[in-house]
Amino acid sequence: MGDLKKYKNITRGISDTYINVHPIQRGGILTAEARKALLEFGDGYSVCDYCFEARVDLVDNPPVHDFTQDVAEFLNMDDVRFTAGCRHAKWAAMHMVCEPGDTVVLDSLAHYTSYLAAEANQLNIVEVPHNGYPNFEIDTDGYARKFEEVEQKTGKLPAMAILTHVDYRYGNLADAEKVGRICREYGVPFLLNTAYSSGIMPVDGKKLHVDFLCGSGHKSWAASAPIGVLATTYEWTSRLFNKSTVRGDWSGRGFTKKEVALFGCSPVFGAPVATLMASFPAVVERVRHWDEEIRKAQYFVKEIEKIEGFHQMGAKPKQHTLMNIESLPLHEIAEKDKRRGYFLYHELKKRKIVGLHPGMSKNFKINTYGLKWEQVKYVADAFRDIARENGIKIED
Amino acid sequence: MGDLKKYKNITRGISDTYINVHPIQRGGILTAEARKALLEFGDGYSVCDYCFEARVDLVDNPPVHDFTQDVAEFLNMDDVRFTAGCRHAKWAAMHMVCEPGDTVVLDSLAHYTSYLAAEANQLNIVEVPHNGYPNFEIDTDGYARKFEEVEQKTGKLPAMAILTHVDYRYGNLADAEKVGRICREYGVPFLLNTAYSSGIMPVDGKKLHVDFLCGSGHKSWAASAPIGVLATTYEWTSRLFNKSTVRGDWSGRGFTKKEVALFGCSPVFGAPVATLMASFPAVVERVRHWDEEIRKAQYFVKEIEKIEGFHQMGAKPKQHTLMNIESLPLHEIAEKDKRRGYFLYHELKKRKIVGLHPGMSKNFKINTYGLKWEQVKYVADAFRDIARENGIKIED
Repeated sequence: MGDLKKYKNITRGISDTYINVHPIQRGGILTAEARKALLEFGDGYSVCDYCFEARVDLVDNPPVHDFTQDVAEFLNMDDVRFTAGCRHAKWAAMHMVCEPGDTVVLDSLAHYTSYLAAEANQLNIVEVPHNGYPNFEIDTDGYARKFEEVEQKTGKLPAMAILTHVDYRYGNLADAEKVGRICREYGVPFLLNTAYSSGIMPVDGKKLHVDFLCGSGHKSWAASAPIGVLATTYEWTSRLFNKSTVRGDWSGRGFTKKEVALFGCSPVFGAPVATLMASFPAVVERVRHWDEEIRKAQYFVKEIEKIEGFHQMGAKPKQHTLMNIESLPLHEIAEKDKRRGYFLYHELKKRKIVGLHPGMSKNFKINTYGLKWEQVKYVADAFRDIARENGIKIED
Repeated sequence: MGDLKKYKNITRGISDTYINVHPIQRGGILTAEARKALLEFGDGYSVCDYCFEARVDLVDNPPVHDFTQDVAEFLNMDDVRFTAGCRHAKWAAMHMVCEPGDTVVLDSLAHYTSYLAAEANQLNIVEVPHNGYPNFEIDTDGYARKFEEVEQKTGKLPAMAILTHVDYRYGNLADAEKVGRICREYGVPFLLNTAYSSGIMPVDGKKLHVDFLCGSGHKSWAASAPIGVLATTYEWTSRLFNKSTVRGDWSGRGFTKKEVALFGCSPVFGAPVATLMASFPAVVERVRHWDEEIRKAQYFVKEIEKIEGFHQMGAKPKQHTLMNIESLPLHEIAEKDKRRGYFLYHELKKRKIVGLHPGMSKNFKINTYGLKWEQVKYVADAFRDIARENGIKIED
């Protein structure tokens, strides 16, 4: 082993004075309450102090059991479990609902973990297309068409339809209600991946006809990683949260309270669930102000598009705070700069703005969620400064 | 939803002045360095600031990549990944190595998550017996016998053998080297569950002939939950960490850097891996002092067995700090006490000792790992006081 001292004092190299616009971090920044809970419940297994029922979702102290029900109500679903990330929630739903060899239909902007959840469950994948550059909008009608194609080809309807509510590439908000209606009509179970929506914007599972709602605590509920949310309806709860039936052939041991898809009891029994819980009152409040977040995002787009050659990709006007900006003139500059693609990253860091993917310049992803108005303006100004200093024209 | 204020200020109800003897918490108490890392990396996705390779185990800043290699060396294995708990590591190994319908052989003291990992992978289970009360020792020779039984019955050897290095019921240390030799001899892949050993005591994977070594960061490596360790040898690394081959039928998207069994990239990319890393130098140091921990455990047993009717179950002399003490006289008292089984819990809490499972009195589990000598003495004295006050005889 090398020198171990380097592990003792690891830091992120940024302080609170920086503005973090990381596309996947804005919704996961802890609240003050969560930071307190983090320290209180940081030790391994801290939430198990008073576990009597062999499952963390049933613990009364801290009030995880009540919390589970409140989260279900918040999402307008019937039952909830917490998982080791949204990826585990998606794997679990597919594992309990589909059989190996089944086909699932998913949007072609889906997160890689949706594809891998299907792969780990030995499922075939059929994609619903998007309309390509520059809008990349999912053809929601395509779900009906793909359902029929799958039925024609395999003799049965897909085992599940998966829609990414807001995708991580362009931040497009898909019409989940429409896909939900199509699924209802065909009788195909509907999984909605809300990793970038629930926790920052209002999501009503019943209204969207969702059977399985997956969310991400560390992406969008101001919680410490990893924690996912897996919500379902009464119709599916016993299948999804099916109890273990394994039995020791010699000992006769069995674990009838444990849930198979959660590996018995979800391993989020420390800081993740404690921070999710501590942030929850703030999360419930913040989704009420989603309109204001949209206004800030649209303002940012308007300002950044004043830079010649800058262009927001994805659906317009923005309905989400995660965006992807095409910036070809910056790329031309980066080509000549000895810092290459890192040029933009360093120019922003000088201005105390972090979170852009280092090395990117043809386009970049940025998230304005939860920034104050003056911060949004400051960031837009910083881009304009950088452009101006490099001879790019700015519209007045 | 009810009143959400109760979530804002959740606490464990104990302070640092308490001695925590919780059987599953002693090895997961954070170091001072880990508490710092917890605050630094508490925000969701904090470890992804500088991720260029699409996998957290390849991140250089913080030095996760180096760390992965150092952990492999520490365990004397060749390759390592971090998972959402030891349960996920076991599921992943079985998922990548076994086929549905295969049989695995495991010890009858295995943690429930070993049984459930097999169940979720549709594997049949054959248990190796233990010798029952009071020692509950696994018959390690039984592995060879069970391998042959499985071969006779199914026509092939088991797909995997699983041994719990130290079990969570009695804290018995199994003879892993012997089981490893048997596995090597029969050519059966060997998974060793070190959830209660690696991170607190020396574990040498190669010496024990281990193919898959699973460990628990929040149980035994002073890390924040959930984080597991999955280590393997060069022989197995490409199969265990097999890359994704899924491909979008319309988009052609693929994710060839992502690992299937990790759901692409393990979701421990915040506080869990940061705390594991920050505690690692202390963990490397502390396993060198395991002998002293054994001395404290054996001392504690000696002192507690001076109470009439108290008896340490499991193998003797103790080779681990997790122990299960039979305490029938306390049960008789609890029967008459209006606090019933909570009597012991409350009597200890009055003395600032927490961590016993509330409601237990016939026997109790306790862990002395990492307690100072004076704390070990204080806890033993507390039990004797409680016994004495309730008329139980104490040997001089």
